[in-house]
Amino acid sequence: MSSPKKAKRGIPSKSEFNAWYPAIVEIADLVDKRYPIKGMDVWKPYGLKSMNLIDGIARREMARTGHHEHRFPLLVPEDLLEKENRLVSRLKAARAAGVDPSELRIEDEESGFKKEVYWVTKGGENELEIPMFLRPTSETPMYTMFALWIRSHADLPLKTFQIVNTFRYETKQTRSFIRVREIHFFEAHTVHADKEGADAQIEEDAQMVQSILHDLCLPSLVSKRPVWDTFPGAWFTKAADVIMPNGRTLQVATYHHYKDQWAEAFDLTFEDPDGNTKPCHQTTFGMSERLLGAVVGMHGDDYGLVMPPSIAPIQIVIMPIAQHVNPNVLTSVYELDEQLRSAGFRVHVDDRDLRPGAKHFDWEIKGVPLRVEIGPRDLESKSSLVSARTGGKQQIALDGFVDSAQQLLETISSELRSRAKKVADGLVCAFPGFIKDENGNSVLKEPIQDGLIYELAFDGSDSDAEALEKSTGLTLLGDADMPFPDPVPCAITGNPTTRRQHIARMY
Amino acid sequence: MSSPKKAKRGIPSKSEFNAWYPAIVEIADLVDKRYPIKGMDVWKPYGLKSMNLIDGIARREMARTGHHEHRFPLLVPEDLLEKENRLVSRLKAARAAGVDPSELRIEDEESGFKKEVYWVTKGGENELEIPMFLRPTSETPMYTMFALWIRSHADLPLKTFQIVNTFRYETKQTRSFIRVREIHFFEAHTVHADKEGADAQIEEDAQMVQSILHDLCLPSLVSKRPVWDTFPGAWFTKAADVIMPNGRTLQVATYHHYKDQWAEAFDLTFEDPDGNTKPCHQTTFGMSERLLGAVVGMHGDDYGLVMPPSIAPIQIVIMPIAQHVNPNVLTSVYELDEQLRSAGFRVHVDDRDLRPGAKHFDWEIKGVPLRVEIGPRDLESKSSLVSARTGGKQQIALDGFVDSAQQLLETISSELRSRAKKVADGLVCAFPGFIKDENGNSVLKEPIQDGLIYELAFDGSDSDAEALEKSTGLTLLGDADMPFPDPVPCAITGNPTTRRQHIARMY
Repeated sequence: MSSPKKAKRGIPSKSEFNAWYPAIVEIADLVDKRYPIKGMDVWKPYGLKSMNLIDGIARREMARTGHHEHRFPLLVPEDLLEKENRLVSRLKAARAAGVDPSELRIEDEESGFKKEVYWVTKGGENELEIPMFLRPTSETPMYTMFALWIRSHADLPLKTFQIVNTFRYETKQTRSFIRVREIHFFEAHTVHADKEGADAQIEEDAQMVQSILHDLCLPSLVSKRPVWDTFPGAWFTKAADVIMPNGRTLQVATYHHYKDQWAEAFDLTFEDPDGNTKPCHQTTFGMSERLLGAVVGMHGDDYGLVMPPSIAPIQIVIMPIAQHVNPNVLTSVYELDEQLRSAGFRVHVDDRDLRPGAKHFDWEIKGVPLRVEIGPRDLESKSSLVSARTGGKQQIALDGFVDSAQQLLETISSELRSRAKKVADGLVCAFPGFIKDENGNSVLKEPIQDGLIYELAFDGSDSDAEALEKSTGLTLLGDADMPFPDPVPCAITGNPTTRRQHIARMY
Repeated sequence: MSSPKKAKRGIPSKSEFNAWYPAIVEIADLVDKRYPIKGMDVWKPYGLKSMNLIDGIARREMARTGHHEHRFPLLVPEDLLEKENRLVSRLKAARAAGVDPSELRIEDEESGFKKEVYWVTKGGENELEIPMFLRPTSETPMYTMFALWIRSHADLPLKTFQIVNTFRYETKQTRSFIRVREIHFFEAHTVHADKEGADAQIEEDAQMVQSILHDLCLPSLVSKRPVWDTFPGAWFTKAADVIMPNGRTLQVATYHHYKDQWAEAFDLTFEDPDGNTKPCHQTTFGMSERLLGAVVGMHGDDYGLVMPPSIAPIQIVIMPIAQHVNPNVLTSVYELDEQLRSAGFRVHVDDRDLRPGAKHFDWEIKGVPLRVEIGPRDLESKSSLVSARTGGKQQIALDGFVDSAQQLLETISSELRSRAKKVADGLVCAFPGFIKDENGNSVLKEPIQDGLIYELAFDGSDSDAEALEKSTGLTLLGDADMPFPDPVPCAITGNPTTRRQHIARMY
């Protein structure tokens, strides 16, 4: 399978995804993984520019929906956590009292949390009186301040976000963008006067996620997570998962509805127009550099990255051909460069003294959507030869090139969307279901295949879910946003239900 | 001095700078200082936008000069420091061997350094085998990677930068933007094939600093720091200091020439075109949120901030007057808004249902350069009433308003520059010099006044400098970039010298 061309690039075949992915992130110069702490990569300029463009899309959505950008400190004193602990205790008590378990968190959050963070215990040579941790996410520091900012209904809704580095003491194997210890993180946090306000926010978050994923040409499964995978302190958690080509799902966005569950712990109350003190309702919406990991993993191929035009650091590369033969070639190249830049495109002129093949090779690895060649013969025909990273070459007139480029980039985006959908859809199959064996035990009708996601109707109990996960070795993503149109039998209980769910191997 | 208007704003008079500064940063909503760790402020949207605009100016300069943006990890394993320690030891040995002391660092960097950083000692519940510190600056992590990236002369020059959070375990009193524990930091690091390359980089850095300070309307003193204030491992350090209105100097930018002093410690060598292995030469250029602190401190007044147009989050606020009387007012306001936005201005329409006085009041506090009122009478005259934050109102025709606005903003920038220069110049005075008292001891001719910077000719030894600092209670900034045109007697030795220096109370 490995042609000499590929061997030269040093890129493993994408069919070997687990070898291809870690190789391509370095070959395409997104990151350097040789920093002496595993899971803390160095962002190279090309990777950082791609990420900044993704951040730009997130900021666009935030501006459109009236969120304001703040920046909170990285370090959180341990004693602020007491408030979180109080919350968890309260929820436990409610559970003990027999309240609807879908409204509760059941784990010991305190110890779970403390195991996952980095701790600063010394300033200079002094032991700190109160240790501080590096934020894994910012509920605690933000809510501490929100309590100072919110007095009356006029202060609500409060819609904030930040894009910052967060940290996780990761003990599993790290993977660039997918599982790292210093995380480039986006988090939006909102506060509302009532549950309806938070409900509407969750709707808005869902739309923003779809808008962002549309720009990244990524299809996703949106699910309401099972209660045991709900974020600590949340009433419910929804998540968007991207199906990677190896059949594993990658959670790229989550949004949490907290109802008023944090209000008591953090004294988050407000005075309504009638002078009554009321608890605040809250939500969180998080994304991270995993979005870039999903882009790399879904769109790339044997020849390198394929960048969606929305986040390609270079959308169009222009290559002069035989410029020494005809000096008008360079003039024409820079004219086109100027036109395209003025129209807002990200353009690069590659006038290196290299043969065209070598240049194509480089820009294929980087996944530049459009490569434009202009040589002496093109000047005669007043046109240029344009190659799309998704395949195909055509001669395009220089007159009206800006409009043509716009159309070609849109075509590439559409092509990426349909390819990605095809890949993802091809990895989802119907759950085989169970039969009784000779001893009367439930066994899978067919064995679970590695690298596939299974769709099923599921309306069972928590212990049914546990049995399902155990027998398949996969994880339930939760209730899909798109239920079945008509009831079908639950894969476990046989009871009719419209609850569509997926089980998969998650990253 | 305090009119009722000022009392209402709650802004102390700027003549009481040390009360005014900490008040205005919160009143103008740049930061919130109530986060439970001193020196770690929460950036509010208005402050963050201002800072982002400063970052934008720095990025513009970096792009112009061919620097590429990277992002290195925050955490640095302690053992990487061994390399720095080796460097310091080497320099000590050189000093002991009687090498030119201007090329050496004399302090115990290791212990000094360890006292100034935060230490991560635990991941989850595990003690880390190798403690990690939060970067105070990134020489160590960057040079570790540079050694992997640089092989041959073709890899040079390497010009990198990043804009990140850095940390300092600060034991002195903290002040927003000026002395903080989590620092919004800019750092450019370059590697060159020879000393001349690094020399040229230092020149380029000097020009960039002046370009940035010009945009911020800030005059500065540029000095080559005395050897004892040279950055660890540097051959020499140059710094730009802004004179604050209270007569203290604020170091806002430094650039360091390392020569090849780090090459050995970090194995930073390259193969020249003839195949010889040679040591790399390096430089660093650093700035921080102190730039915003200088802007606030220098330009603000009794009524609030005064934002230089280059970094004003809102350059022009448009206020409709009596829009209920004539609905065409709002139409006209939004037309102007659209025109100004299309021309690239940052504009805000304040259509709140408040009386104009209250609106002016708010935008004065925020330091918006231009306030535009459009009311029914203005529609008749096809003009608007424009107030500049630096003073003065005039009626400006709506026809051609974009050009007028551009000119008015430029006028405000010039006005801020000349005002700031006047303030700074007014705080620099001639050093009184010494006389012998009845016992033959050198004593100051006149006492040192609080809140002034003294200029003097100084060509003495290190111990002369120490005596000078001790007798005045001030700090030598080092050799000014502008020496005296003709030799004058050194304030200590009396020997003629052109070395112009300043002594001041530094932040």
